[in-house]
Amino acid sequence: MSTTTDAPRRPARPLPWTPGEVEHRLRAIAAERYHHRHPFNLRMHDGLLTREELRCWVLNRFHYQRHIPIKDALILAKLDDRDLRRSWIRRIHDHDGRDGDDGEQGDAGGIERWLRLGEAAGLDRMPLLSGEGVLPGVRFAVEGYVNFCRLATPLEAIASSLTELFAPDLMVTRIGAWERHYPWIEPEGLRYFQVRVQQGRRDADEALALVHRWAETRADQERVLAAFTYKCDVLWSLLDAVEHATTTGSADAG
Amino acid sequence: MSTTTDAPRRPARPLPWTPGEVEHRLRAIAAERYHHRHPFNLRMHDGLLTREELRCWVLNRFHYQRHIPIKDALILAKLDDRDLRRSWIRRIHDHDGRDGDDGEQGDAGGIERWLRLGEAAGLDRMPLLSGEGVLPGVRFAVEGYVNFCRLATPLEAIASSLTELFAPDLMVTRIGAWERHYPWIEPEGLRYFQVRVQQGRRDADEALALVHRWAETRADQERVLAAFTYKCDVLWSLLDAVEHATTTGSADAG
Repeated sequence: MSTTTDAPRRPARPLPWTPGEVEHRLRAIAAERYHHRHPFNLRMHDGLLTREELRCWVLNRFHYQRHIPIKDALILAKLDDRDLRRSWIRRIHDHDGRDGDDGEQGDAGGIERWLRLGEAAGLDRMPLLSGEGVLPGVRFAVEGYVNFCRLATPLEAIASSLTELFAPDLMVTRIGAWERHYPWIEPEGLRYFQVRVQQGRRDADEALALVHRWAETRADQERVLAAFTYKCDVLWSLLDAVEHATTTGSADAG
Repeated sequence: MSTTTDAPRRPARPLPWTPGEVEHRLRAIAAERYHHRHPFNLRMHDGLLTREELRCWVLNRFHYQRHIPIKDALILAKLDDRDLRRSWIRRIHDHDGRDGDDGEQGDAGGIERWLRLGEAAGLDRMPLLSGEGVLPGVRFAVEGYVNFCRLATPLEAIASSLTELFAPDLMVTRIGAWERHYPWIEPEGLRYFQVRVQQGRRDADEALALVHRWAETRADQERVLAAFTYKCDVLWSLLDAVEHATTTGSADAG
């Protein structure tokens, strides 16, 4: 309990990274772990999936899609600042849709667009809405992500959304690949991906600015990278489950 | 482990109440425990509060107001149904405000209206926004309510909002009482109460319809009444803390 000035010093804390260094590290993690590299995604974009395999993915990924407004409501509940909530709430409307005001056209929302993607790929709404064919590995990954957003700090919850930095490029690749390789899917079904290109960029910019503002110490920044890694693993794990089901023949997408 | 048909029967479960009977019980609880009967509210509406006492209430009640969007985001995250979320999210906008679209006027929201109420009553925004003068009893009551909405079932969380059934009448009484007894408060400051008359009626109708639909058994209905009682106690306890502070002279509303 020495209080003299020559008490042994604590080891120096590492200085925080610059915003550019944080981004560099996010990109390095994404290059290795973001699901654009997953074998199932590579097969999808190379046109190698059967109709049943693609439908299996559409159905299982819908389980993730329908939980986006839930996780965003949990993040919203963590935000003390009204102006920040006023901005973040847009993400819930983007997926749930918004009613039209005064005769203006509303927005059906991303969940509805995904249901139409399913229809364009030959899947009825009912199996998607019932959630019956969802694989256990997909359920666990999605549940893990929702609980992460429920229990983590606001900084970590927001950092976990930074996969949006890489989603728009993936959407652009996907749109091209699907048009080329899966012409049996009605083009109108690709609307979900098209809308997400712009929404994803805007969401990523917003989340990255918050992360730069809030992560003041190296320890904070390391928590950001850990949250981002966790989220990459959620998306990867979802595809692992789908890939395993399709290659072992246990996929049943109705 | 008898499986014969003459095994002793379980006692008969009570039949569910009719919707009218549930409402009758809600009204009976409100008649006894809703905060319109609290001595502090009675003194307020009889014009017996000093300026300092009224300011103390405005400041402490703001702590409740600013948590309404938080508790509604937690309820939103419990709702599986997209259409239901699309409706419930309106409550968050009602307090946080909405941006204007295409030159249309936005809505400043209930939190902003409460800050203006404070200004009309001679309180700067800063002490309200800092939350510094908030009494411990008020903090605990609000924290209890937010955690109730976080942890309870969707039915219970929604039932706890049913105090809105009784809020509009209280608002109407309050507007009249304040105009009569506290003419030093600028009339524009009463806008919060005026807006809540309509919003409260609509919110109460929505919540009551959900409660009638979801509470199928007597046990469900009893959980509804317990949740409603809990919420009445939150509001009552908030006023207990304010009353205690004002009568013992420990109120300091800046």
